[in-house]
Amino acid sequence: MAKSRVLVVGTGGIGTMAAYALEKGGLAEATAVMRSNYDAAIKNGIDIDSVQWGQVKAWRPTAITKNVPDVSKGDVAPFDYILVTTKNIPDVPPTVADIISPAVTPGKTAIVLSQNGINIEKPLIARFPTTPVISSVAYTGATETAHAKIYNDDPDCQKIGAFTSPQVPAATAAEAAKRYVNIYNPTGTLDVLYDADVAKVRWRKIAYNGSMNPIASILRMDTPRMRMSRHIIDDLIIPIILEVRAIAEASGVTLQSDLVDVVIHQDPSDTGFKPSMCQDLEKGNLMEIENLVGEPVREAERLGVPAPTLKIVYGILKGLQLRVKEEKGLWEAKFQSGNSYE
Amino acid sequence: MAKSRVLVVGTGGIGTMAAYALEKGGLAEATAVMRSNYDAAIKNGIDIDSVQWGQVKAWRPTAITKNVPDVSKGDVAPFDYILVTTKNIPDVPPTVADIISPAVTPGKTAIVLSQNGINIEKPLIARFPTTPVISSVAYTGATETAHAKIYNDDPDCQKIGAFTSPQVPAATAAEAAKRYVNIYNPTGTLDVLYDADVAKVRWRKIAYNGSMNPIASILRMDTPRMRMSRHIIDDLIIPIILEVRAIAEASGVTLQSDLVDVVIHQDPSDTGFKPSMCQDLEKGNLMEIENLVGEPVREAERLGVPAPTLKIVYGILKGLQLRVKEEKGLWEAKFQSGNSYE
Repeated sequence: MAKSRVLVVGTGGIGTMAAYALEKGGLAEATAVMRSNYDAAIKNGIDIDSVQWGQVKAWRPTAITKNVPDVSKGDVAPFDYILVTTKNIPDVPPTVADIISPAVTPGKTAIVLSQNGINIEKPLIARFPTTPVISSVAYTGATETAHAKIYNDDPDCQKIGAFTSPQVPAATAAEAAKRYVNIYNPTGTLDVLYDADVAKVRWRKIAYNGSMNPIASILRMDTPRMRMSRHIIDDLIIPIILEVRAIAEASGVTLQSDLVDVVIHQDPSDTGFKPSMCQDLEKGNLMEIENLVGEPVREAERLGVPAPTLKIVYGILKGLQLRVKEEKGLWEAKFQSGNSYE
Repeated sequence: MAKSRVLVVGTGGIGTMAAYALEKGGLAEATAVMRSNYDAAIKNGIDIDSVQWGQVKAWRPTAITKNVPDVSKGDVAPFDYILVTTKNIPDVPPTVADIISPAVTPGKTAIVLSQNGINIEKPLIARFPTTPVISSVAYTGATETAHAKIYNDDPDCQKIGAFTSPQVPAATAAEAAKRYVNIYNPTGTLDVLYDADVAKVRWRKIAYNGSMNPIASILRMDTPRMRMSRHIIDDLIIPIILEVRAIAEASGVTLQSDLVDVVIHQDPSDTGFKPSMCQDLEKGNLMEIENLVGEPVREAERLGVPAPTLKIVYGILKGLQLRVKEEKGLWEAKFQSGNSYE
């Protein structure tokens, strides 16, 4: 059987670990799209310091490319899967659909979104209505510490299933998801598993990402310090978790009864761990606010569920994002004389 | 008639301008309590660059002292007024009552609180039940640019009246307030006026200080930029102003009908003006969150008025204040191994 061709878009920590695991499994060949880290990877390969795979030196996937290949030209074979592990910032173009568009072959390719948040599949289904779109929710701990240097401190952990797409038969979508799990984890030794209940998996992760991420970002505070202050947990974190639970419930997803306790204790207390959104803000990077907070707020409004905390936190995050956009030249402040409100 | 003796506690911008105006009026002699700026004032006097009084060089009030005088010892004559212009941070001792206590002569002294916020008089009335407590709400623009150097860019503007105090007859309190206005503004040329409706004056200022101050602080953003982003005004500022209006209304104070518009346009649009709370946060100073936001939230709860935005913003401010406290050594993070929530 020919190996599956997987295009990996976004080769930071998670994307590189996926490319490595996919090739290691023997059933896939990975083409890695690399940008800032392209030169380093071409010259010296990729170094991985992994709790799971050990010290990997000068590793190279089957192919490394600087841009998303254009399969319409016929000089690149079509891809079975496009794995997307980039950050998802729909408030700043280009969109994920724009980025991967040249590499999608309808009837052949399935798209795997290894990104957080709610409703991330919607723009892809709208653009590629006959293409299966697969959800991966990853709990893997992996970061790029320097160009083409990956530090992987938590074993690969993913829950994978198919998004519901009106024009894709459910069985076809599920089969594409299961096949992807199989080529990723052919021996069944990895904690990378098929889970049909995509909505539940995603809402479960929103309970953390919609609460600890934004509050840590707004306060620029690590989560152990947040836990040390009872009021931050009681006045901010717990209300958000309960709002997320209520929105999920109204959308048909019942989350676990010990949700609050589990989310609050999710990460370790003995180091100054800051969630990704907070790290992004402190580095001056755009934050993933729309899919982690904005979409839950819009779901709450659509379903008539009160979510005052999430809504106000979303408003604050948009203000913080505006500052990042200004620093990046994506927004310009226009001062004017006189007192006017435009 | 003997001059009134006024002790000025807090000789930054507002306090120094008050001491100067009081002495300039000819009916008062000011004793200025100075700390960080004591040596500079003793050596070279105080320089004032004032839109109202012009260039004042090497000015000295009647007395300069490093500490609040202890009138019980008999070597310092009692004070008619104690003017307090310090920041009000009741969440960190010492309290205002603690600070001024040695200088209060019951039956003689009246206390003038030139500080923002709601319920600031409560701890003083509790400590000094027979002493008139007077409210000054100042719109004066004055800052200390270096030790004993004051820049006064907006003319003195104050509304002064008596707080209601159970054991002080209303007429006595009002008379003390009017007398203070008279010694401050004997010729009537200053915009420093008696206004009996202290509650309305204070709630009106909370509409700005409870909205623009906290949101600017949380976003670390000047108010013109906030106005340029419609969502910050619509999602955060206006909801808070409407909540403040509703709380005030429930407490018996009707605020002006154009409140929202006036607050939003209060400061100029052509410079990057940041409210004082935001300046404090950026300088690593403690913020006046309790009297500007905490007390309005507690009033809302007491009166059964919904104030979700103010409540969540208060929660966030307490988290930001915790970071300032940690930087100042007033709070210590205690990390621990294992996942525990205390």
